[in-house]
Amino acid sequence: MAKKEEEFVSHITKQNEDFSQWYTDVILKADLVDYSPVKGCMVIKPNGYSIWENMQREMDDRFKATGHRNAYFPLFIPEELLQKEAEHVEGFAPEVAWVTMGGKEKLAERIAVRPTSETIICSMYAKWINSYRDLPVLYNQWCNVVRWEKSTRPFLRTSEFLWQEGHTAHATEEDAEEETLKMLDVYTEFAKNVLAIPMIVGRKTENEKFAGALRTYTMEALMLDGKALQAGTSHNLGQHFAKVFDILYLDKDGQQKYVWTTSWGTSTRMIGAVIMVHGDDRGLVLPPKVAPYHVVIVPVAQHKEGVLEKARELHQRLSAKFRVVMDDRDTYSPGWKFNEWELKGIPVRVEIGPRDIENNQVIAVRRDTGDKTAIPEGEIENRMDALLEEIHLNMYEKALKFREENTHTVYNFGEFRDTIETKKGFIKAMWCGDSNCEDQIKAQTGATARCIPFQQEVLNDRCVFCGGKAKELVYFARAY
Amino acid sequence: MAKKEEEFVSHITKQNEDFSQWYTDVILKADLVDYSPVKGCMVIKPNGYSIWENMQREMDDRFKATGHRNAYFPLFIPEELLQKEAEHVEGFAPEVAWVTMGGKEKLAERIAVRPTSETIICSMYAKWINSYRDLPVLYNQWCNVVRWEKSTRPFLRTSEFLWQEGHTAHATEEDAEEETLKMLDVYTEFAKNVLAIPMIVGRKTENEKFAGALRTYTMEALMLDGKALQAGTSHNLGQHFAKVFDILYLDKDGQQKYVWTTSWGTSTRMIGAVIMVHGDDRGLVLPPKVAPYHVVIVPVAQHKEGVLEKARELHQRLSAKFRVVMDDRDTYSPGWKFNEWELKGIPVRVEIGPRDIENNQVIAVRRDTGDKTAIPEGEIENRMDALLEEIHLNMYEKALKFREENTHTVYNFGEFRDTIETKKGFIKAMWCGDSNCEDQIKAQTGATARCIPFQQEVLNDRCVFCGGKAKELVYFARAY
Repeated sequence: MAKKEEEFVSHITKQNEDFSQWYTDVILKADLVDYSPVKGCMVIKPNGYSIWENMQREMDDRFKATGHRNAYFPLFIPEELLQKEAEHVEGFAPEVAWVTMGGKEKLAERIAVRPTSETIICSMYAKWINSYRDLPVLYNQWCNVVRWEKSTRPFLRTSEFLWQEGHTAHATEEDAEEETLKMLDVYTEFAKNVLAIPMIVGRKTENEKFAGALRTYTMEALMLDGKALQAGTSHNLGQHFAKVFDILYLDKDGQQKYVWTTSWGTSTRMIGAVIMVHGDDRGLVLPPKVAPYHVVIVPVAQHKEGVLEKARELHQRLSAKFRVVMDDRDTYSPGWKFNEWELKGIPVRVEIGPRDIENNQVIAVRRDTGDKTAIPEGEIENRMDALLEEIHLNMYEKALKFREENTHTVYNFGEFRDTIETKKGFIKAMWCGDSNCEDQIKAQTGATARCIPFQQEVLNDRCVFCGGKAKELVYFARAY
Repeated sequence: MAKKEEEFVSHITKQNEDFSQWYTDVILKADLVDYSPVKGCMVIKPNGYSIWENMQREMDDRFKATGHRNAYFPLFIPEELLQKEAEHVEGFAPEVAWVTMGGKEKLAERIAVRPTSETIICSMYAKWINSYRDLPVLYNQWCNVVRWEKSTRPFLRTSEFLWQEGHTAHATEEDAEEETLKMLDVYTEFAKNVLAIPMIVGRKTENEKFAGALRTYTMEALMLDGKALQAGTSHNLGQHFAKVFDILYLDKDGQQKYVWTTSWGTSTRMIGAVIMVHGDDRGLVLPPKVAPYHVVIVPVAQHKEGVLEKARELHQRLSAKFRVVMDDRDTYSPGWKFNEWELKGIPVRVEIGPRDIENNQVIAVRRDTGDKTAIPEGEIENRMDALLEEIHLNMYEKALKFREENTHTVYNFGEFRDTIETKKGFIKAMWCGDSNCEDQIKAQTGATARCIPFQQEVLNDRCVFCGGKAKELVYFARAY
């Protein structure tokens, strides 16, 4: 059996041999996803989709608690609407899928499959918003979007993906800015307390901001291969969209004024982040709050009298409080099952065999550390609660430690280049604020400005590239 | 103020004046939906979308309880896949939206925006299913679909709509048939216990079955204008799709066999059914289980000391158990608010004013009957629970009574024609089973065979159209 187990695990490429191949191995073997017959589109299988469902529920609760309601806007956007905001269309046009035929008829005007919904939503807000009494409008939608990508990877970049997009309208600039930052906070808190991922939060540079935004805020996570991943963004759109879509309201003072709008989004991309922040050479390690199951029960010597009965009793009992799956297949050995559920990243494995039954206990094995504990039968629910909480905290701390150990401070471009070639992770450096320097850094190192963090430090007073007067600290990294 | 109230309600066309206009008035004024700039596509506003969210949660729980898991398949289907099953493509091709360009490039093969997902899902099942151990596969997806419709009405028929589609694969014909019927049962139970809608259940005729199905089962509801609406269907697809997509499994006996597949779906169309089964001349009447809010609290004389405080305390208290909204706007009178929340169909209005506070009570007003009751403060939670249950039951009974009173039995085609012209509702009649007779009935009366009900009766032994030997009882109606 030892050999069989070894074989099973050896199907996964090791992270330090080829991280990209490790990723592909894990997502396919853990049954999260599969490639579809449509170029660049993925099929999200139940193991992957239930991670998304758990994320959705957690986020949706937070959106509603902050006063937002869900709505649904059309998949299709007439070309004319998409073209109204100049920067926006320039940013999205190259990756739009166009519908040109309905049934057998050629359409008079071609229609975009939404790459994002600012334009169609703003066209409706113009109709709905008339008075200061109508503000703020705080809507969100859960939907699919399409961006015709040349090079794709499941969860990270696909032609179609699932996301949520919040779209709000406000009476004042301050209200819009407050909303933009509040939703970034909601995302960051969610990332910490649900995904166990520590985020660097801050503002995007002009180069990197959303097409049509006044300011874009972002949360950035560090993957185990040292590359950064943008996991969620929140945009203050200023009055850009209000002006081109004529979203005017009658204020208390009797004046017609343009509203201020925001938008904010997160997507199935976060599943990719979870995989690449927490995974190991045995496969997925899933944060308990989004794992398809908290617990897998594996009966040991299940052919022996009473074992299956006990396991089923336990299954029923734990299901009242946790997401539990029972693996009573008689075609696989317990060792095989252990490996399979480890690969799938289930946080806790509960083993129960004849000796455990005798001792009125079960064995709980943690996925994150591999630690085994015997738990007396009477204490299972409480101990399981505590264990899942402990696993979450340990995963978060581990990810934070990794990020801290892989965040490097550099003072000049020589150091920058050395660091990017020899080390992995974030680079903190001072910047003069000139897009030119940012472009040059990108061209010469492949690293992009991930964000201008809210938590600023002064390393020195010189731009890392040009040596000119530094304006602010920036996090750079190669990124997904 | 009386005048203002009157004005407000008079904006809604009366049902018996013009039912279709009543429907349009209600969905727009109750803020469920709006027309979009895209032909045939609707915007579902928060009041409408939250009905859908409540339906989703109730259905999703039922799907999971019957062993199904959610997945997500691509929006896009290559033309070649769509064309594999002959009947299927014939049924759907006329209403497919085609993507022909990605960014600036013309695609080599045009791609369909999914009208339904049998083909893409079966192409994946062919890859995933190898052994009898892989069966059954019980997946569902929540998504948008597109059918390029010529004539559209919000919720009832739109070019894009939201739905769920279950797709399962089984080892035997019996298993597939059992699944098909089980899911129709789930739908019917949901319709009864969540939507308060009684359904006629049965099998579709060959003419009316799903393109590519062996047998289609349906649930049909009767709207207040006497037209029927198909609210959910469940298809036994036989081996039609398995054979064209080569979904083979190795059975225990060592033989390669084709699987048997099913599919079943319900959509946002059900929102239209809820509106047209329960609504009245004052607007929507929503079943408690899907209403955006169970309860609206309207403070009376809210400028008086203590009223708003008490109303807010009540809001907080009730929110622990119910979906509650508080209307403390100071720009509208209580009477205006009463009308507005009645229009929006919220099941219970709670009024609280100075006299109620003195008497330690609140006034609860039912939307379905208009009945008012004083409820002692200490009993609110329990009484509200009972009240909502009572409302649900009353709505169901009322709808059932309406259907029974509007179901007519006819014995020959003269009676059929008379009945369809002078009465509204279902017509029960015997049928020989010949599609020709069905076609003639449709051509001459506009009524279609809604279903061959499971609950058969023998009226006589003659087909209502041709007078030939009758095979079975059929429900006919004009339908949405």
